[in-house]
Amino acid sequence: MSSKVLKPYKEEHDYSYTSGAYATIELLKTRPDVVRSVYIHTKYCGRADVVGLCRDNGVPVIYDDKAFTRINQKENSYVLGVFSKYNCRLRNDRPHIVLVNPSDMGNTGTIIRTMVGLNVIDLALIAPAADVFNPKTVRASMGALFHVRFRYFPSFDAYRDEFPDHVCFPFTPEGEIPLNRDNCPKAALFSLLFGNEASGLPDHCKTSGTAIKIPQSPLVDSLNLSVAAGIGIYIFAEKNKLI
Amino acid sequence: MSSKVLKPYKEEHDYSYTSGAYATIELLKTRPDVVRSVYIHTKYCGRADVVGLCRDNGVPVIYDDKAFTRINQKENSYVLGVFSKYNCRLRNDRPHIVLVNPSDMGNTGTIIRTMVGLNVIDLALIAPAADVFNPKTVRASMGALFHVRFRYFPSFDAYRDEFPDHVCFPFTPEGEIPLNRDNCPKAALFSLLFGNEASGLPDHCKTSGTAIKIPQSPLVDSLNLSVAAGIGIYIFAEKNKLI
Repeated sequence: MSSKVLKPYKEEHDYSYTSGAYATIELLKTRPDVVRSVYIHTKYCGRADVVGLCRDNGVPVIYDDKAFTRINQKENSYVLGVFSKYNCRLRNDRPHIVLVNPSDMGNTGTIIRTMVGLNVIDLALIAPAADVFNPKTVRASMGALFHVRFRYFPSFDAYRDEFPDHVCFPFTPEGEIPLNRDNCPKAALFSLLFGNEASGLPDHCKTSGTAIKIPQSPLVDSLNLSVAAGIGIYIFAEKNKLI
Repeated sequence: MSSKVLKPYKEEHDYSYTSGAYATIELLKTRPDVVRSVYIHTKYCGRADVVGLCRDNGVPVIYDDKAFTRINQKENSYVLGVFSKYNCRLRNDRPHIVLVNPSDMGNTGTIIRTMVGLNVIDLALIAPAADVFNPKTVRASMGALFHVRFRYFPSFDAYRDEFPDHVCFPFTPEGEIPLNRDNCPKAALFSLLFGNEASGLPDHCKTSGTAIKIPQSPLVDSLNLSVAAGIGIYIFAEKNKLI
């Protein structure tokens, strides 16, 4: 693929980018089959063996400093991985995280990083939802995106129809169980549901299972979505011995 | 204060800004004494009674659309609060969060939001550290900044000298206690220590008390700082009945 055709990221493209050596190395190690090329800026002086990983995986290395300003206008990185978008299937024998209409790419990427860190690696996204392949999401995930299995569903019902055996736990401020280790449910196949940053979970999601709350002061409107998800995933993962 | 002298935020200024109605209302309700003025864009059509709050507190309301582009170049908001920076004292009879050299303003603001949500409202920042008054931090805190007591210390030792009765719990991947509700320490005066995003805690902080770890997969380098702090603060707050 010639560098001439590469453009700044758009959701409708069939390719995306990793920015920086760390995420690009994660990409090369985890999903070498989807990597199209790696750009290295002549100013790059990192010790990490990006070139060796490319060679081992038959990935072309391109030295073209102008490509960085053209493709990657807002970021300040010296390594850029170009990869083809891909699809995943969720496993039906593993717990899931279900993000219903997340709008912020930073939150979505941060939640993906948390999931991988806590060994919960199947992610359902209910549309409309943030684009996991947007470089902002990839960056917030610190390359953890390449370790998760994710899938978009047109509706929560479509997700439920496909995974009827999962036990849903919607997280909402009105939840009946205040979350802690003692009362955290044991469930091999849990689905933890988190809603949109501003509007929370829709009503039909709130009633899809035992609702969980994270008790909090009335002085704040809510916790940040990626913090709330982090607390929820951690306590479920710890209780159910995933970490 | 004439709008002519207002400039885009700089750390050396003695004033800062809230951007958006939500954070400005938090400012007016919580710290009316430090508010210098509130700018309202002629396109503002929110229902929140910003003007009434200003009137009740003797705060001038200024209609000057050009001020928004001049002061607040990158944000898209129609309400802007101008406030004088202020100092706080930490209480010595309340638990503390200690951020050692946090560099990211988004993380720092998000942690402040989490603290207020979980009723732990005393924050020590060990310099060098992110600027709590930067509008990015204020925005990430969703206005929760005005509810915390914060103070900068030149070193961790300076903090310890002033608060010798607090029991320190450094959070580090090598911690001896894997955090959960059962083994979370009970302590009325805890200080939870979190390090820099990239480099973690310095060694002399790691040995300042019983080190706590959040178990995690080797597939990620670490959890996001604000997520790790959220998990730690939540479990300590819940165990010690602060929420």
